[in-house]
Amino acid sequence: MAKIAAAMNTVNADTENLAELCRGAEEILLRRELAERLAGGRKLRVKVGFDPTAPDLHLGHTVLIHKMRQFQAQGHQVIFLIGDFTGLIGDPSGKNVTRKPMTPAQISENAATYRQQIFKILDAEQTRVDFNSRWMSEMGSAGLVSLAARYTVARMLERDDFKKRHAGGEPIAVHEFLYPLVQGYDSVALKADVELGGTDQKFNLLMGRELQKQYGQVQQVVMTMPLLEGLDGVRKMSKSLGNHIGIDEPPAEMFGKIMSISDRMMWRYFQLLSFQSGREIARLKERVGQGMNPRDAKLALAGEIVARFHSAADAADARRGFIEQFSRGGMPADMPAVELPVGAGGLPIANLLKQANLVVSTSEALRMIKQGAVRVDGERISDRGLVVEAGSGHVYQVGKRRFARVVLCGGGG
Amino acid sequence: MAKIAAAMNTVNADTENLAELCRGAEEILLRRELAERLAGGRKLRVKVGFDPTAPDLHLGHTVLIHKMRQFQAQGHQVIFLIGDFTGLIGDPSGKNVTRKPMTPAQISENAATYRQQIFKILDAEQTRVDFNSRWMSEMGSAGLVSLAARYTVARMLERDDFKKRHAGGEPIAVHEFLYPLVQGYDSVALKADVELGGTDQKFNLLMGRELQKQYGQVQQVVMTMPLLEGLDGVRKMSKSLGNHIGIDEPPAEMFGKIMSISDRMMWRYFQLLSFQSGREIARLKERVGQGMNPRDAKLALAGEIVARFHSAADAADARRGFIEQFSRGGMPADMPAVELPVGAGGLPIANLLKQANLVVSTSEALRMIKQGAVRVDGERISDRGLVVEAGSGHVYQVGKRRFARVVLCGGGG
Repeated sequence: MAKIAAAMNTVNADTENLAELCRGAEEILLRRELAERLAGGRKLRVKVGFDPTAPDLHLGHTVLIHKMRQFQAQGHQVIFLIGDFTGLIGDPSGKNVTRKPMTPAQISENAATYRQQIFKILDAEQTRVDFNSRWMSEMGSAGLVSLAARYTVARMLERDDFKKRHAGGEPIAVHEFLYPLVQGYDSVALKADVELGGTDQKFNLLMGRELQKQYGQVQQVVMTMPLLEGLDGVRKMSKSLGNHIGIDEPPAEMFGKIMSISDRMMWRYFQLLSFQSGREIARLKERVGQGMNPRDAKLALAGEIVARFHSAADAADARRGFIEQFSRGGMPADMPAVELPVGAGGLPIANLLKQANLVVSTSEALRMIKQGAVRVDGERISDRGLVVEAGSGHVYQVGKRRFARVVLCGGGG
Repeated sequence: MAKIAAAMNTVNADTENLAELCRGAEEILLRRELAERLAGGRKLRVKVGFDPTAPDLHLGHTVLIHKMRQFQAQGHQVIFLIGDFTGLIGDPSGKNVTRKPMTPAQISENAATYRQQIFKILDAEQTRVDFNSRWMSEMGSAGLVSLAARYTVARMLERDDFKKRHAGGEPIAVHEFLYPLVQGYDSVALKADVELGGTDQKFNLLMGRELQKQYGQVQQVVMTMPLLEGLDGVRKMSKSLGNHIGIDEPPAEMFGKIMSISDRMMWRYFQLLSFQSGREIARLKERVGQGMNPRDAKLALAGEIVARFHSAADAADARRGFIEQFSRGGMPADMPAVELPVGAGGLPIANLLKQANLVVSTSEALRMIKQGAVRVDGERISDRGLVVEAGSGHVYQVGKRRFARVVLCGGGG
């Protein structure tokens, strides 16, 4: 009986481990293989490739690193692979002036920055940072020709972006066909058991499986992670869209930005970013369903993330500051959080106030602005023609009592 | 007056030099550029690439070497480039078992064989033999990626054979896109002024022009030479088709094979293979037009070629032997030479004799065979069901007086 119970416990633990590793993943090829390898009890080699260009990480980037952490927590070997081989080449077509060849010194500097940033999430002792120039430079031109022989042009043209560009008459330079092969070969060189990447990397991750097969290796499990939405809750987080939370942002700013996301997005951030276990998050969600104020869950999330990239003390300060700011402005900390869709042209302030139920009509809105009764983040506004664009959220106030935290969601893209 | 006459002579000499270099060429890009460079008086670098696989040259291969000789005769630098870089790689897709990677020792052995063979046509002192592994190995994998960035997939797919294979769903391995780039880069490395190749090489020769332009060099003139037809007068000369004349064949055999080509093909062989000038050949043709026996022109051609690959004495012996053989058999040395078309299934002997006007009907043919009155190359035949396949020519004889030298021409392919 005791033996059976112990075996049952192992099975349960295995199931839970697998569930935790699969948490938030977009797609896993093949989940069954992953389960088998985990059951094998061997330390798996988990490969994740990163660009060698200057890292300026935001929370979106940390989704993958967070997933690496989950593997690491279960005793597996994670490999943070910097794709410096392509960085050393730059954009040889010369069309992209911003992609000049990088020097080894620049790459090593960027690697140091990466280390400083990723070890806020990963265990430095248990992380292998590697560079693919190690094997790619050694491969030589003849070796690269041999590698290129292992895949066909037709299959390469099946990759979504290549297919579209080819069909649309947009040029694809021949060397672009070599990069997926290089990335795939990295899995061979590392004998990867698992490779993680964004959903946009699926073709390249599968290339790793293909090449490993050709080189007589066991094929890696491929896991794609979704691209995290930014503050607008719709488009993927990106610095150029201005909807990002940089991991080097000051504590108060980071805290405020996280508090500005909608209650719905909050759960996605928990899923993809929180160090809490899936089980703990499920429990929290249950409590919110039973009446707990979602604001308190969001405060916990903001506190966890600020503590991660700064310190527990910074997180506590930021939390206090955030709450005080609202008290000072006489703002209720539990005001409604509203997401509004918005087109490329933005949303006029009067329409915004109406759609957020802060006024009953746009004419009331215009009148209130004229009376000086409308504030955005505590600042009185007077411009009735103000147009608000998609991006991070703000607190809108009409008169003394009416408040809403409003996030404008751009129409995708 | 004397000055003008001298200038006119120079112009005439230039024109004649250009005409000799262009003789027999299928296409020249650009002829005007070639004329300008020749007029510039500089020693031109003339590049011709050859396969590193074991050379077993036949007359078809020597068309290019003969053209090199014409450049050499006018004082230019010819470069016999052995494409050993690709040979060292072999067929990395592993689909072609006969294309295993070659060792440097094998390549050097083949180069020695090449030297021994080509210097029967070229001046050894004035010929540079080079190997593209010299720069291609040094280029490294990063260099090869940069090279691959200089051409697009779409333009690569415009190459005839790639286009057909892609449209027909036949696989093209990615490395096949690298080989034209390598060949083109060879022209950059050598700063070639002119590149010669077979008509099937046109795309690759143009790649040389393209890359030279990108590397800021003056673009090479491209000259394609036709593929020499074999003994059947229709299909290109090829060992696998059995219609070839190997340059290592014994003198008598070589002589006899050349004598077996049709009178029409004889002029093409003169054009593409004879060391006689274009003017001399034109004069000879004129004389045949005025009644000279074409057999005598053919004897001269056979003598010239046997002397080239063996010796003048061998040529004289072969000529004597050839004439005696015919005299012994009571065969007239000036019998008609007939070309007959033939399908894949070959031609029954009775039809052959009728079509060659040796009999008036197939029934006469069958009767004559039964009577033992039909000979092929002097041997009596008895098999009335004999089917003759496309290939080299034979002498057919019916009775004592009727003779014809018949060449069966396969239907292309």
